[in-house]
Amino acid sequence: MPPPQAQKITPRAQDFSEWYTDVIQQAELADYSPVRGCMVIRPLGYRMWELMQGALDDMFRATGHENAYFPLFIPQSFLAREAEHVEGFAKEVAIVTHTRLRATGKGGAGAVEPDPSSALEEPLVVRPTSETIIYAMFAKWIHSYRDLPLLLNQWCNVVRWELRTRLFLRTTEFLWQEGHTAHATEADAEAEARQILGVYRRFQEQWMAMPVLTGLKTPSEKFAGALRTYALEALMQDNKALQSGTSHNLGQNFAKAFNVQYQTAAGGLEYVWNTSWGVSTRLIGGLIMTHSDDNGLVAPPKLAPIQVVIVPIWKSDEERSQVSGVGGQVKTVLEQAGIRAKLDLRENMKPGAKYFDWEARGVPVRLEVGPRDVAAGQLVLARRTGGKAAVKVDGVAATVAAALDQIQAGLFQAAKDRREAHTIRNVTKQQFIDFMKTPGGFAYGGFCGSAECEAQIKDATAATIRVLPDPEFRSAEAPKTCMWCGKPSVVEAVWAQAY
Amino acid sequence: MPPPQAQKITPRAQDFSEWYTDVIQQAELADYSPVRGCMVIRPLGYRMWELMQGALDDMFRATGHENAYFPLFIPQSFLAREAEHVEGFAKEVAIVTHTRLRATGKGGAGAVEPDPSSALEEPLVVRPTSETIIYAMFAKWIHSYRDLPLLLNQWCNVVRWELRTRLFLRTTEFLWQEGHTAHATEADAEAEARQILGVYRRFQEQWMAMPVLTGLKTPSEKFAGALRTYALEALMQDNKALQSGTSHNLGQNFAKAFNVQYQTAAGGLEYVWNTSWGVSTRLIGGLIMTHSDDNGLVAPPKLAPIQVVIVPIWKSDEERSQVSGVGGQVKTVLEQAGIRAKLDLRENMKPGAKYFDWEARGVPVRLEVGPRDVAAGQLVLARRTGGKAAVKVDGVAATVAAALDQIQAGLFQAAKDRREAHTIRNVTKQQFIDFMKTPGGFAYGGFCGSAECEAQIKDATAATIRVLPDPEFRSAEAPKTCMWCGKPSVVEAVWAQAY
Repeated sequence: MPPPQAQKITPRAQDFSEWYTDVIQQAELADYSPVRGCMVIRPLGYRMWELMQGALDDMFRATGHENAYFPLFIPQSFLAREAEHVEGFAKEVAIVTHTRLRATGKGGAGAVEPDPSSALEEPLVVRPTSETIIYAMFAKWIHSYRDLPLLLNQWCNVVRWELRTRLFLRTTEFLWQEGHTAHATEADAEAEARQILGVYRRFQEQWMAMPVLTGLKTPSEKFAGALRTYALEALMQDNKALQSGTSHNLGQNFAKAFNVQYQTAAGGLEYVWNTSWGVSTRLIGGLIMTHSDDNGLVAPPKLAPIQVVIVPIWKSDEERSQVSGVGGQVKTVLEQAGIRAKLDLRENMKPGAKYFDWEARGVPVRLEVGPRDVAAGQLVLARRTGGKAAVKVDGVAATVAAALDQIQAGLFQAAKDRREAHTIRNVTKQQFIDFMKTPGGFAYGGFCGSAECEAQIKDATAATIRVLPDPEFRSAEAPKTCMWCGKPSVVEAVWAQAY
Repeated sequence: MPPPQAQKITPRAQDFSEWYTDVIQQAELADYSPVRGCMVIRPLGYRMWELMQGALDDMFRATGHENAYFPLFIPQSFLAREAEHVEGFAKEVAIVTHTRLRATGKGGAGAVEPDPSSALEEPLVVRPTSETIIYAMFAKWIHSYRDLPLLLNQWCNVVRWELRTRLFLRTTEFLWQEGHTAHATEADAEAEARQILGVYRRFQEQWMAMPVLTGLKTPSEKFAGALRTYALEALMQDNKALQSGTSHNLGQNFAKAFNVQYQTAAGGLEYVWNTSWGVSTRLIGGLIMTHSDDNGLVAPPKLAPIQVVIVPIWKSDEERSQVSGVGGQVKTVLEQAGIRAKLDLRENMKPGAKYFDWEARGVPVRLEVGPRDVAAGQLVLARRTGGKAAVKVDGVAATVAAALDQIQAGLFQAAKDRREAHTIRNVTKQQFIDFMKTPGGFAYGGFCGSAECEAQIKDATAATIRVLPDPEFRSAEAPKTCMWCGKPSVVEAVWAQAY
């Protein structure tokens, strides 16, 4: 087994895309699989996903949602019931057509093929998203206004047959949560879609330390079948935007397609109003590209599977027993304080190699324990984000907890500062064209509202409207003219090149 | 919306199978979906699964396992690499052959079909189990003895195209965990397979309150591709056995098929030894059929999504405010003690209807709060398993916690007593035939070891060998002769009709 330091991480400045892949491989977050476009999420990456799930799940529960589980398969005719929806997904679905394998008789022993006699009467689509199957069930469960609102969420895998895939960011199969709700009124559905946008924002800012813009998608970027799509957008270190979550007000589109009606208090019959919303393992890609550096992963403490690694340093067996003993005690004290700690007692590996290894894996805090430290009742605390200082063994849990909080806050502030430094407002056409060449980040400007301008801008600069920003993100003064065509602006927009 | 008491649960004595389905529907644990053989797990059922996952996950982690995630799809050629394995699964796999839908042009607007131009070069199987894809990755990750043991687990959905399906017990898609490990020696793999059998047993007995037999499967019942399969078997209330988990020593079968080799300390090259093991949402079916009664679900307290329901009783508005206030305080006190409590303040529903509703949903403890109770500083504590008594509001958390512990222990003891009452040992052929007519439960007897006897017994009585029991379950005296053919017995076996 080659020692970890044998591999190199491509510097960001040299090739951002290579750097991204190297960080993932070096930290052992994920790996390529033999199945086209599907990845394997390795223990470190999966633990990070579990921590994300835990935090989001608490937030969903606190806002009245319950988890459930719906089938992986959707009859192809279901997908076709909502016209825009099938249009949006028809070109990227995995379709199950047979249910038995048989020996081919050629191609050697063990060569198999689908048995033609097992062809399904109606092919099944592997869910690319579950509106259709879920609203078919809602039609069965919802009878009266007393059954509303119905607030469900499911954690599951979905499949979208993507041509170009990238670890975490765009994979054929990915893990996500999809919330699905039904409401009595349009106002209730709108409030739900907005509430979830707020939940996502809190999670991404407070847990992932990733600042986000929120706002409305234009019709060309909204979810296939939605009335309105709200989205969150984060700026990566290469100044490209990542859509990190969406929340859709579906109106009555699916209710009509699946006949989800309820009896009102007055005795009438109405279609329900639906919302759906989701975030996925793509968030892990966003986390990586927001914080990590040329030494590898930088994990925000709240989502770091290992928050503190303790590295004892010894030369003799006697020293080993001494520093390991203190290391073990410190680990226990940290764990009792709810801190996720690991003690690295690997033999035949120098401390420097261990530091390098844990840095690549993004561990926020390292505690070094040498014989002299033991004698002095101290440890050396090194931060993944820079800085090293001696700290007392007494009260180490409080010291480490404070350091983790500072690192978490520091990462968020740094990411926010970086985003602001790569944001321009009230942009002119020429500024915009120049800005997008690099690309430069988020450009705010006036927009005439026409799909034609949108398409021209995309062709010319590869930039798209990420959101029509929510009030708190809008410029102090509303732009007067469309930054592209010069006609009157109807709304301020934020453009960027995007993942 | 019809009140809950309008539906009826078929009594067990009348039709056990109908009873089972009624319990599930009445408790809203799961529902049928429009997709053949696939079910929807509703919030109460899914929460129970989450509680199961939490407990098992802690046990897996405590024994050194880490979670990861592998692809849903497996190239069909992978499945075929291990001869027994493909033989075992070829007839029940969902196969993805296309990746795009197109409009048919006939059958009305929105009619779609797989686009022939999107046919995959190699069809993909939806995982029925993941040995093949996981061991292909192991081959990439394992180089040296220092990489061993590799101890992974994944929580996921799998698909087996079953002809006859039943909610939770046998569904086309189900949720499970599958552990996959690699070891340097056969002894290590054997120890792992046995260790997990012990983990499963502890979980099923201590959490599910479901007593289990453990032992070895005969070759005719072992996992396709395994060297040895160990299993857990529980006895349901209809005296049929349910296989509630399996743990396989896979030997080097898959290591050879996927070329998973490691360098030994001495510098040689060896194939690894694998184990795999799993339990699924089938456990929920086992839990239901072990404890529930003609009034509906009985959930063991440790896995009850709601452990205590508080039902205030009022006639006037003044009484309502009084009893609700006390109910709310009690709820807070219980939750602070880590007890999952719910306060039922539904209007327009009589207390009796609420009792009935929560009984059907299996809530272990009900606390009734009437105006006179408030005055006396007491509550009425009713157990789902029978018994009602006044208890003091002071110290209610400790009182309830003790009741929950007693209920948990009582359920386990009752299930164990029932199993023992439906177990016969050292059975003769005629006794066996008579016993299996009802069926009567577990029959222990001598077995000559021949697959021929096994097949004859199955044909004649529909009973199969559930396990060759582990030492602690064996009869005090080993049987001398095969209970069926009269030849010398080589091992004691336990037969039952099974799900």
